[in-house]
Amino acid sequence: MTDIRVQPLTAAAFAPYGDVLDCKGAPDRIINAGLCGRFHDRAQMDMGDGRAGISLFRSELRALPYQLDLIERHPLGSQAFIPMSMDGFLVVVAGDDLVPQAFVTAPGEGINFHRGTWHGVLTPLAGPGLFAVIDRIGAGANLEEHHFAAPYRIIP
Amino acid sequence: MTDIRVQPLTAAAFAPYGDVLDCKGAPDRIINAGLCGRFHDRAQMDMGDGRAGISLFRSELRALPYQLDLIERHPLGSQAFIPMSMDGFLVVVAGDDLVPQAFVTAPGEGINFHRGTWHGVLTPLAGPGLFAVIDRIGAGANLEEHHFAAPYRIIP
Repeated sequence: MTDIRVQPLTAAAFAPYGDVLDCKGAPDRIINAGLCGRFHDRAQMDMGDGRAGISLFRSELRALPYQLDLIERHPLGSQAFIPMSMDGFLVVVAGDDLVPQAFVTAPGEGINFHRGTWHGVLTPLAGPGLFAVIDRIGAGANLEEHHFAAPYRIIP
Repeated sequence: MTDIRVQPLTAAAFAPYGDVLDCKGAPDRIINAGLCGRFHDRAQMDMGDGRAGISLFRSELRALPYQLDLIERHPLGSQAFIPMSMDGFLVVVAGDDLVPQAFVTAPGEGINFHRGTWHGVLTPLAGPGLFAVIDRIGAGANLEEHHFAAPYRIIP
């Protein structure tokens, strides 16, 4: 089995696949009489001919090492995973070559997969496994799956 | 000063103002080989002629009793507050009579204000004050404010 080592999530490393949603750097705007920073419009949302919806996902926790058998993609829209607890989670993505890369988020970070990006299913590593998911609501076949002939093993 | 006592947030009590985003009850779908529940499309998003965007808000914490001087509304779009930590927060809303009501969320709950609903600014009561906000991105004047001649005091 081929091992893949997890990397810390950075905006630069993740840029080919999507957006990191975090509060690094200065806020774009200060609102609410100086009491709140707004980090504005951080996700490249693309819902095609559908619309954006907010769903909640409650997932079983996973652990490393994690066996990766499957990736999927949504050809019709982007998909954001926003953790509702201050816990990191595992993010797997792949380019057109289908070779996976693995990242672990820091607490307080979400991600947005660009439309059509290969990615692993939601894999929380700690906490309640509760996420808000902003993705496309609409008609059409918005799920493609790729099963690896030989699974990968994702390691710390 | 008029006192307003906080209520626990329930979908029924909040229905005139917006949606409670939580994982109560059974999931609408089971996905990811049985390991994840999807609570599907729970927010009445209405972005009018704009589009939905994901921003992050990092806010100073507040405490009860809380003096309420101001409510605001967004006439052009809905706005969701999704906590990124397992902490409750204060939610203030008002109808056309401008009489405020106050709710406190449970951990793991977000809310979505319907388009044009009067509400208080983001008021976390505990935790890092970190939220994902899904609201309208687009041109036009999307903020109206109402300053109370006599402030209210929100109490536990």
